[in-house]
Amino acid sequence: MTPTQIMVNGLPGNVAIKMATHARAHDRFQLLPWSLTGPDVDSETLDLDNFSIALIRPELADSQLGQIKADHDPLIIDYTHPSAVNQNAELYVKHGIPFVMGTTGGDRKALVDTVTQGDTPAVIAPNMMKQIVGLMAMFEYGATHFPDLFKGFTMRVKESHQKGKADTSGTAKAMISYFNQMGIDFSTEEIMLERDPERQKNLWDIPDEHLGGHGYHTYSISAGDESSFFEITHNINGRDVYVPGTYDAVDFLINKLNDPENRTGHVYTMIDVLKKN
Amino acid sequence: MTPTQIMVNGLPGNVAIKMATHARAHDRFQLLPWSLTGPDVDSETLDLDNFSIALIRPELADSQLGQIKADHDPLIIDYTHPSAVNQNAELYVKHGIPFVMGTTGGDRKALVDTVTQGDTPAVIAPNMMKQIVGLMAMFEYGATHFPDLFKGFTMRVKESHQKGKADTSGTAKAMISYFNQMGIDFSTEEIMLERDPERQKNLWDIPDEHLGGHGYHTYSISAGDESSFFEITHNINGRDVYVPGTYDAVDFLINKLNDPENRTGHVYTMIDVLKKN
Repeated sequence: MTPTQIMVNGLPGNVAIKMATHARAHDRFQLLPWSLTGPDVDSETLDLDNFSIALIRPELADSQLGQIKADHDPLIIDYTHPSAVNQNAELYVKHGIPFVMGTTGGDRKALVDTVTQGDTPAVIAPNMMKQIVGLMAMFEYGATHFPDLFKGFTMRVKESHQKGKADTSGTAKAMISYFNQMGIDFSTEEIMLERDPERQKNLWDIPDEHLGGHGYHTYSISAGDESSFFEITHNINGRDVYVPGTYDAVDFLINKLNDPENRTGHVYTMIDVLKKN
Repeated sequence: MTPTQIMVNGLPGNVAIKMATHARAHDRFQLLPWSLTGPDVDSETLDLDNFSIALIRPELADSQLGQIKADHDPLIIDYTHPSAVNQNAELYVKHGIPFVMGTTGGDRKALVDTVTQGDTPAVIAPNMMKQIVGLMAMFEYGATHFPDLFKGFTMRVKESHQKGKADTSGTAKAMISYFNQMGIDFSTEEIMLERDPERQKNLWDIPDEHLGGHGYHTYSISAGDESSFFEITHNINGRDVYVPGTYDAVDFLINKLNDPENRTGHVYTMIDVLKKN
């Protein structure tokens, strides 16, 4: 079997490095020695365990992607920067390169429009952590079908992320919207945000090595009269958890591409990937 | 509006008393002064806050139900005993009395057959606690759609119920089967069962007054490498939690009965009730 040519964009970013490392470690894939990078990156190359990857600055992206497409017909994994999401997607579609977009932010509607107006399929998901995506889908199902399920209940939400993360997590926002639909009055401003490494270590039991990168969420729901209590927790340490989902998305896209009918500008989500349609 | 005539069977059982008390407290309902009881009950009446209810022994159930149907056209709520489930349902169907069956046990298949072969609708559910039923439906959705979601993960399950409850809870069994379908290898024998009131009080923080009646469940799921952790908890104190769901089932059945087309032998579940079809 010919290995799939993978181009990982967003090096030398942390998550992009995880993705590139995975491609290097598995014979099914061949990591291409180029990566789109940001305008503030000075290095011209990144050494990934003795494999040298050329970092392509934005002004050269268009021409070089054209050449890479012609020579290697690759599949792209994009973990770049919110500010680059839309222009990158436009380039991928222009050159007809299918891609998995794990980068968050940017103009999401424009992102989807770019793909659907082209003829290249893509998997786009702001969260590639499969189990969290699945859990969210279950609660979305509840929100759709059981609109008043938790009416009269109160909720507390606490979440901890690495110091420096200023915004509320998209996962928490989505989960809260599902509980809102199930009858609970709660706004994202009420979330208890933890960003203090000392407390994370001592009160949350977050391992030292993950104080710099983690996402802990707990949703606690109680009936006012103490008669019932529900709690859902999902805790993530590090960035490795995004690798399996991203490569499942790659495999999903390869399957789609093997069927000429699917070579259309369709946007798939992680739910599609999990369902293995 | 004419109040709905409610007959609660299973007095003087705890849950039946909750149901009868609710009917007494709400003008929309009129509690009938009769209740089917078990063969081992000696009292002939039960005094419910100055309202006297005649307890009908099994040998008189058939003839008296016929009279009650003729005089009051009631709706029955059944919280009796597993050993009475099937014969009671046969009588209700024979006399054309719609019913909500919250009693667990008995021959469940025969129970459904009895109803579907008659022309009286019923809501039958082994768990009338709405939020737990909804939560189970969400995880059943996950099991159906995301078969390998938690593949490679390990699970721990602990549950606490009042001393004397020997069997594993049906809710835990169902939830475990959903996680099995999502790729987790776990058998019900591996559940940590807690039945010791001292430990329940000191380690589980279960309120004193609920040591005699509670159901605490926690499912903990972790990736072997500490990269992710999920936990779902649902804790119930006392028996009041079954009242809202049971009366939602009553309202659901009243709506069905208002449409002549629905006066058929159809079995509805709590999922139907939650969906408000």
